[in-house]
Amino acid sequence: MTDQENAFPQQNSRIAIENVTPEIDVGHFALKRTMGERVTVEADIFGDGHDVISAILKFRAAKSPDWQEMPMTFLLNDRWRGEFSVSEIGVHLYTIEAWIDHFQSWRRDLKKRLDAKQDVSVDLLVGAEMVEAAAKKAKGPDAEQLLAWAKILREKKTSPERALDPQMAGLMAGYPDRRIATVYTRELRVTVDPPLARFSAWYELFPRSLGAEGKHGTFKDCEAALPRIAEMGFDILYLPPIHPIGKSFRKGRNNNPKCQPGEPGSPWAIGSSEGGHKSIHPELGTIDDFRHLIEKARENKIELAMDIAFQCAPDHPYIKEHPKWFLKRPDGSIQYAENPPKKYEDIVPFNFECDDWRGLWQELKSVFEFWIEQGIRVFRVDNPHTKPFAFWEWCISGLKRKNPDLIFLSEAFTRPRVMYRLAKLGFTQSYNYFPWRNTKYELTEYFAEITRPPVSDFLRYNLWPNTPDILTQFLQSGGREAFMIRLILAATLGASYGIYGPAFELCENAPREPDSEEYLNSEKYEIRRWDLSAPQSLAGLIGRVNRIRRENPALQSDTGLRFHRTDNDQLLAYSKMTPDKSNLILVVMNLNPYYTHSGWIDLPLDEFEIDTHRTFQMHDLLTDTRFFWHGNRNYVELNPHRFPAHILRLRRYTRTEHDFDYFL
Amino acid sequence: MTDQENAFPQQNSRIAIENVTPEIDVGHFALKRTMGERVTVEADIFGDGHDVISAILKFRAAKSPDWQEMPMTFLLNDRWRGEFSVSEIGVHLYTIEAWIDHFQSWRRDLKKRLDAKQDVSVDLLVGAEMVEAAAKKAKGPDAEQLLAWAKILREKKTSPERALDPQMAGLMAGYPDRRIATVYTRELRVTVDPPLARFSAWYELFPRSLGAEGKHGTFKDCEAALPRIAEMGFDILYLPPIHPIGKSFRKGRNNNPKCQPGEPGSPWAIGSSEGGHKSIHPELGTIDDFRHLIEKARENKIELAMDIAFQCAPDHPYIKEHPKWFLKRPDGSIQYAENPPKKYEDIVPFNFECDDWRGLWQELKSVFEFWIEQGIRVFRVDNPHTKPFAFWEWCISGLKRKNPDLIFLSEAFTRPRVMYRLAKLGFTQSYNYFPWRNTKYELTEYFAEITRPPVSDFLRYNLWPNTPDILTQFLQSGGREAFMIRLILAATLGASYGIYGPAFELCENAPREPDSEEYLNSEKYEIRRWDLSAPQSLAGLIGRVNRIRRENPALQSDTGLRFHRTDNDQLLAYSKMTPDKSNLILVVMNLNPYYTHSGWIDLPLDEFEIDTHRTFQMHDLLTDTRFFWHGNRNYVELNPHRFPAHILRLRRYTRTEHDFDYFL
Repeated sequence: MTDQENAFPQQNSRIAIENVTPEIDVGHFALKRTMGERVTVEADIFGDGHDVISAILKFRAAKSPDWQEMPMTFLLNDRWRGEFSVSEIGVHLYTIEAWIDHFQSWRRDLKKRLDAKQDVSVDLLVGAEMVEAAAKKAKGPDAEQLLAWAKILREKKTSPERALDPQMAGLMAGYPDRRIATVYTRELRVTVDPPLARFSAWYELFPRSLGAEGKHGTFKDCEAALPRIAEMGFDILYLPPIHPIGKSFRKGRNNNPKCQPGEPGSPWAIGSSEGGHKSIHPELGTIDDFRHLIEKARENKIELAMDIAFQCAPDHPYIKEHPKWFLKRPDGSIQYAENPPKKYEDIVPFNFECDDWRGLWQELKSVFEFWIEQGIRVFRVDNPHTKPFAFWEWCISGLKRKNPDLIFLSEAFTRPRVMYRLAKLGFTQSYNYFPWRNTKYELTEYFAEITRPPVSDFLRYNLWPNTPDILTQFLQSGGREAFMIRLILAATLGASYGIYGPAFELCENAPREPDSEEYLNSEKYEIRRWDLSAPQSLAGLIGRVNRIRRENPALQSDTGLRFHRTDNDQLLAYSKMTPDKSNLILVVMNLNPYYTHSGWIDLPLDEFEIDTHRTFQMHDLLTDTRFFWHGNRNYVELNPHRFPAHILRLRRYTRTEHDFDYFL
Repeated sequence: MTDQENAFPQQNSRIAIENVTPEIDVGHFALKRTMGERVTVEADIFGDGHDVISAILKFRAAKSPDWQEMPMTFLLNDRWRGEFSVSEIGVHLYTIEAWIDHFQSWRRDLKKRLDAKQDVSVDLLVGAEMVEAAAKKAKGPDAEQLLAWAKILREKKTSPERALDPQMAGLMAGYPDRRIATVYTRELRVTVDPPLARFSAWYELFPRSLGAEGKHGTFKDCEAALPRIAEMGFDILYLPPIHPIGKSFRKGRNNNPKCQPGEPGSPWAIGSSEGGHKSIHPELGTIDDFRHLIEKARENKIELAMDIAFQCAPDHPYIKEHPKWFLKRPDGSIQYAENPPKKYEDIVPFNFECDDWRGLWQELKSVFEFWIEQGIRVFRVDNPHTKPFAFWEWCISGLKRKNPDLIFLSEAFTRPRVMYRLAKLGFTQSYNYFPWRNTKYELTEYFAEITRPPVSDFLRYNLWPNTPDILTQFLQSGGREAFMIRLILAATLGASYGIYGPAFELCENAPREPDSEEYLNSEKYEIRRWDLSAPQSLAGLIGRVNRIRRENPALQSDTGLRFHRTDNDQLLAYSKMTPDKSNLILVVMNLNPYYTHSGWIDLPLDEFEIDTHRTFQMHDLLTDTRFFWHGNRNYVELNPHRFPAHILRLRRYTRTEHDFDYFL
């Protein structure tokens, strides 16, 4: 509405475009897609009166000035739909344009008039005028054809039915009269990320634990571990902070506030006289070693992910160089981190409310830029929810403008609104509540929320059964079976997932104390030695699961996830299917790590395009067993001590030859 | 997100304000309220980190520059709520402001520290600094008290518990540090209308049918009818168009395209050599007669409503004076109204796509202005959905800026999106699908949609069982009982409703032809004589129902409507209750006009504040019968030939005296 007395709108438009989906927070935030994915746009589009409307979806890469156009189609109840694909990494824009289509209205009405055997001689002249106007805009043969048609319409002897010539109508559709078109108020954005943003398997490890007995592990040791990690099928190797570790207030083993001489401290207490966020902990190696590791990882088809934790140890150089970036207490001391009554004296937070906040933002952004220059493309960001939203929005959008292929994983285990805001403002992937969703009810409710619009349009979840901070009670008490259950859930519910190893594959499950989720002898505070050849190792299973993920495109996206009814609440069943339905994976999971469970699974055979009259195969890719199923309800029994899950690939019946059935 | 490289946001804000409700179409449209009603505003408000947040709701009349403020309260899951009342007609604005409240955070943390028996000497100094800063903003005794308190905080011997003094915290709340506050992006609007916009009973009649036998009725005859209409309890008398009726292509009886000499024509074919939209049909009287009628109506507590139909008869003066406002066909003729193959040659539509659309808009707006000057405050607008949305938005907002008490009723029997858009852009009340909602399923589904946000925030429904264009099949076939059912539904489901009389109260139900909703011998095309003393007249019942509406505030608003379970699908039960619960009306309706139906009604006694251990009275205001009910399930039986409905007023048990129970 205009606020000025008698001010006319700029345009004499007759069309309303409302309820556009997807549109995140009034277009303030961008939708997320990866290369090659489709964007399906819907809107309510309607005008006054009864004229025919035409609508198009307009889209372009932000860097290109030219819109491409796709016609939108009418669905029902004033709802329209259009679609486009994004084939390039970077920001894309889309919007909608619609207009009263007088030619289409004329053609619809002419048909009714002819059916009612009315005199249409004047109507044919009306049509001729529109065709002539279109001919003026057309060139070459189009213009000639249109002019010839206009001439026919003007001839009194013409059979009126010729006016309905569909070929001519098709030609006219190319030259619509869009002088009074309505363009949607906003241009909406899509951030198009590389495929790795959608489909990724992460492996977290502490390089310092990779050294030979008694030695601090190095980047060179990390290189030696690459073949093992590649063999397990991971795409991303994520290292905790690699910077110099603070020496004052350094923590000792098991989070002891007092550290013994020689203890290594927590990598998240960043900075000492040896340097800060742009330096490397000397015991890990040099910057050249690090660059070399990035290259070696890439040779193994692994991207290296860095951990960015914006906080300082009390001896971080920033504190002397930029005292104004920190909060000073009345006694002259610097404010350390607290969650009263808990004190974290080994950590000093930045004061984002300081007067020089612009200088602080610039410096923090330059930390990313420094590591991007070394070759890093993937960042895991520690506790982003304790820094201002506006900072992240500014920082990530600035970085992605130059490097649109960057990936940022948000580690914000906090309230849903905050977690969602961080995803909206630019984080590529998000940690989430998966570690604490164990029962069928919890899992189905939670995934229903995060896999549907609007959440699925801006948040990509990354599922972690464990982290150095999270050893869940389910893992503590469920034995090796619990680790198998959580691994398979993470790897099949999520196109992106990760584990913190070798603690995970070795089923490490001792907590520091009862009711704690902290590891006993946590690697955060000490160097551990892992016996990778231990018999309980899940490395083989992990390798098999990651191979199944790579061979089955259905598991490489989260859009196709749906749950299926089972008659036993300990059995969870869900499927993922590619849009063309050629690849379908059904996972059936016994959520109980202790007992065998069995039950009946209901499947929507029509949606799966399974012939109800034919047997179909369910091929368990974990055990290479083939089950012969029939009808929409089939039996499953899972003994967790053998295997707690099936990862079943549907093979539909294709043909019979000499009494032998083939399944694909 | 900024689009410029490295551009910092203007403000270093740490708070997000999202999902504000109510907010209609990104604040483009205004919320609707009437004087005295409340606006309850909710929002997700959250910041980074763990600091305490404070939030206020700001509101003001658009014409006043000063915001008023109300604190918002935290509900749960980052959701906040605040409320304000609107006590003045006209546009009001509201928005939200929130900030990190360092003083509240300090106080919360201090308490935790004290509980943990930590040394808080430095924390007390931190607090003292904040109190001193507040003292600088305060004046008089507040400033003195704060300074004294700061001094105490600075004294080493002070008991730390004194720092938690709630009285001081209350004082500090008056001087918050809002330097880095976040103000919500938009200022949202509320249109505050007069009470008549919320609660109104409309009566439509054709003045020309009020004359003595053989004579054309006049405004004087209308004046004579006022006492009867007031006696029936109506607030608004709505007249079909009162302008000169076109003579060329005038329609005859029963919509005959050829009219016989002396036939009066349809009042909706507006304009002749005698004048157009600013003139009065000579046979009705003069402009002075009309002004007199407006005054006389007001003496009877009745507002006169005019019908504004923006269309012209072929001999309307506009057509000669402004030929460019109409579409010319290639043969030189003016385009008449059509819905192919149907032709409406007595009507010429305006061409809103003409080059002089600004001139056309101005003239149409001046039609309203002309009649406003004569004293009209209520307009019924004919077919607004066949004129551009942008025109209505511009026209109504312009008119209401000068006359905020105007009421516009939208007659748009069209698709839901279009109906809703007209309500959003400024129409005060809306006709709707009520005439065709007959079964329990239809009624509950439809009213669930239109009585809940977001629809209820912008659309006020006005329920019409009949109009001169709508004689539903239910009325055609259900006899007098059907008219009673539809009357009581309209008058109790809707705080605003209307009837077209005397056809309605005389139960006129003959259609022009089978399967038609047109009246036989429709008053639209001829003058009718009505026998108001006919025995079937519902005038008495209508008067009683309107008296019940006036005496029971629960029926004067639509916000309290809710449906209740019955075990018989022919029985519909619903209640309306005032916010203070003092007035509660329960309607039980037998939807079947032919047979007696009985069943059990479930009521939520706790929400109704009925003592479950006591008998309560249900007082039928239609028949003055008092039923004694007990518990949450009670029996009802309704014989439509006696009375198809109860309009029950709840009377709760109050006290017993000498074994005699009182109910209020």
